[in-house]
Amino acid sequence: MYSPVTPEVVSHLTQLVGDENISTRQSDLDLHSQDQSAHEAHAPDVIVWVENVAQVSRVLAYANEQRIPVTGWGAGSSLEGNPIALCGGILVSFEHMNKIIAIHADDFQVTVQPGLGYKDLNTQLASHGLFFAPDPGANASIGGMLANNAAGIRTVKYGATKDNVLRMQVVLADGRIVEAGSRSVKQSSGYDLVHLFIGSEGTLGLITEATLKLAPIAEHMSAAVACFERVDDAIQAVVAVRGSGTDPAALEFLDAFSVGSISESNDLDLAAKPTIFMEFHASHVGVLEGILNTVREICQEAGALNIKTTTNNAERLKLWHARHHAYETIVRRHPDQKFYISDVAVPISAYPELIAFIETYRSEHNITAYALGHAGDGNIHICTPFTADTYRSVYDMNTEVVEKAISLHGTATGEHGVGIGKSRFMKMEHGLALDVMHEVKQTLDPNWILNPGKIFP
Amino acid sequence: MYSPVTPEVVSHLTQLVGDENISTRQSDLDLHSQDQSAHEAHAPDVIVWVENVAQVSRVLAYANEQRIPVTGWGAGSSLEGNPIALCGGILVSFEHMNKIIAIHADDFQVTVQPGLGYKDLNTQLASHGLFFAPDPGANASIGGMLANNAAGIRTVKYGATKDNVLRMQVVLADGRIVEAGSRSVKQSSGYDLVHLFIGSEGTLGLITEATLKLAPIAEHMSAAVACFERVDDAIQAVVAVRGSGTDPAALEFLDAFSVGSISESNDLDLAAKPTIFMEFHASHVGVLEGILNTVREICQEAGALNIKTTTNNAERLKLWHARHHAYETIVRRHPDQKFYISDVAVPISAYPELIAFIETYRSEHNITAYALGHAGDGNIHICTPFTADTYRSVYDMNTEVVEKAISLHGTATGEHGVGIGKSRFMKMEHGLALDVMHEVKQTLDPNWILNPGKIFP
Repeated sequence: MYSPVTPEVVSHLTQLVGDENISTRQSDLDLHSQDQSAHEAHAPDVIVWVENVAQVSRVLAYANEQRIPVTGWGAGSSLEGNPIALCGGILVSFEHMNKIIAIHADDFQVTVQPGLGYKDLNTQLASHGLFFAPDPGANASIGGMLANNAAGIRTVKYGATKDNVLRMQVVLADGRIVEAGSRSVKQSSGYDLVHLFIGSEGTLGLITEATLKLAPIAEHMSAAVACFERVDDAIQAVVAVRGSGTDPAALEFLDAFSVGSISESNDLDLAAKPTIFMEFHASHVGVLEGILNTVREICQEAGALNIKTTTNNAERLKLWHARHHAYETIVRRHPDQKFYISDVAVPISAYPELIAFIETYRSEHNITAYALGHAGDGNIHICTPFTADTYRSVYDMNTEVVEKAISLHGTATGEHGVGIGKSRFMKMEHGLALDVMHEVKQTLDPNWILNPGKIFP
Repeated sequence: MYSPVTPEVVSHLTQLVGDENISTRQSDLDLHSQDQSAHEAHAPDVIVWVENVAQVSRVLAYANEQRIPVTGWGAGSSLEGNPIALCGGILVSFEHMNKIIAIHADDFQVTVQPGLGYKDLNTQLASHGLFFAPDPGANASIGGMLANNAAGIRTVKYGATKDNVLRMQVVLADGRIVEAGSRSVKQSSGYDLVHLFIGSEGTLGLITEATLKLAPIAEHMSAAVACFERVDDAIQAVVAVRGSGTDPAALEFLDAFSVGSISESNDLDLAAKPTIFMEFHASHVGVLEGILNTVREICQEAGALNIKTTTNNAERLKLWHARHHAYETIVRRHPDQKFYISDVAVPISAYPELIAFIETYRSEHNITAYALGHAGDGNIHICTPFTADTYRSVYDMNTEVVEKAISLHGTATGEHGVGIGKSRFMKMEHGLALDVMHEVKQTLDPNWILNPGKIFP
């Protein structure tokens, strides 16, 4: 079906991008054969480090003509195998396209290249008092965040990546360069191509530039941590906080196993009980005091065993450091094992049922698993250590949890994307809508050269 | 190209929807021949009032087979001719599909039929302390708001319609019923079909059901009104307020003509000067005091001539009543004229240049025109009274203003949609992206039966 990457192909690509921007060395291929997921590595046949949109256009037009697969690569920090070149072919790395093109400070916007890490972006934006809010962790590239519609801890207030993008430059499979959207924050002008490309995981086009929405950095921040005897009580508090008008910037749930793990490793005095972590942002410190009073009342009413609140920055950062590094902390406790990361999301009213299902399943099947996630969004991750011997049982648990989430009117993936691991659930989740996605794909990439093997089963 | 609506067609449609749900009476056709725009009326050949998705599916499958145009109809309150049946054919009215299907209060969601008016929805939601935030005015139907991606005054805080929808049921041109999205607030599961259909103005499918995001009704609200000598000063204040972390729920600009008009008619003591109207929402009244202090400082620094602030509900409602009814007030001042409503949006940093362009143009061409709009979003409307004699000059002004907005990295339409009046700007605004939209249209509606004559030039 696809053509092989022959020496002639490599030679032609070298002409397109230059000697210094191409490699077929095994060490380079290996470094770009796997993301941070547990999916099997697969090396591309050749890597090109593109430097500008014209090169991307020429590479794609050529690959399309030759029927060679093309997969985009940002930072390799994704968690569902999204940039693994399953069918080999050309890996287009955006690592060299990592510049800020323009900061539009008065507009709370920035125009960037896709290879830029969001943490690096925020470092450069700090002096303007602005930041790009989605925070998936690691130092994900903007291009990867757009391709996977990444989200993170602060989504409950600031939205996911798709909520923070105004325009993009995209190169289609045939090399056409299109501009989707505009720098106007209000747009009602024809089909919303920006959102069609966001979350398409590089299967409809490669994003070469984006104008992002920025938020003002809050002048004052506070944190609150409350633990509960029962998951239901914790989730009752989550629902009440969301409805209270306190506008949380983060509203996280950690199960007892996760809290036990991070408390021990971070020298925090937290009980190993279902716990919610909250953060609030405000322009006046007085506002925060009012919010924390409301939150304390809500948590008490929900039966909290213990509530800590702080407007002290150092204390807040210490608490949140533990949450931000929960995954690494958990991984360190299981040094010789790989980790299976599950990502599902449901309407918040179904969250207790989903968590109860997970708890029952892992206990009945005797599986070690840590459940933690963005409760304010109904999003949960299950981090499960496994070995070759236990892989099948962990894989099966993921299947059961995803099917449960879908049955609760939720989704197979809240923020990691479909990638390799979730394509088998697409028909169940989307039904006939998957056919529509397939028709759109067929229209925009008729030779299926873009990131083959992803999204569609 | 299209088949006529013959007696046989009417007879077949009658079998599909029932005697009581179909009409070819001229009075009914006339009532559904025009929205609230100044575009020329055009009657459909037949109207069907659908009652459920199965009927919509059967009507579309039949129309597609017969090559008969189909245009959707909600409340007829749109402002760009969006539901005018330009090519005749079948008008599918959703006026009878106007029920709330389910209120998911804990999830801050509601599932509704498309014919429901958003004001009626909010009346029914009030007892839950929740509301659907987009507020385009009139009593627009939810289906129409989705189809046009309507927005309104509170978009600056709560987003446009597209930001407040989680899932939709859509009937495609061939009658297939698809479910796009899910009730999970976080979704990263395949192509974002929800946003593909939103704003497609009934040219890709007809929306038969939607699950909307709701917001908690703020416990406390305040208003602030500040007037300035110069437009630039007013916009400087707008930018500063947006960047202050005070999170305005409304941030409106009215030019001197508009303010003069509404002040006189509403017995308000406002100077006929460039003015900004602001609203703030908070869970504590103390929060509002802090916000109003910040806002007063910002406006003073920007050179405000006068600043009024209030946390009193009656005073706030009186001020905002004037803003909400500005259009009607202006229309009443020109009783024998029609109105041309222009809708463009630009990045906020370009707003002063856009407003200056409008002021210069109307003064040089001696055109009476009122400029007012959602400054926090860079969105402006120009309401221009016209007669048969002055139509051409008003049309030309609209052309110039739209081209200016596009040149400032803005858009031909911020919230009214493309409809009839803006299709001629699509190539200029979107370039090659318009070809992509065309390809998507061709794929999903190969016989071009859905709302022909809209969006594409």
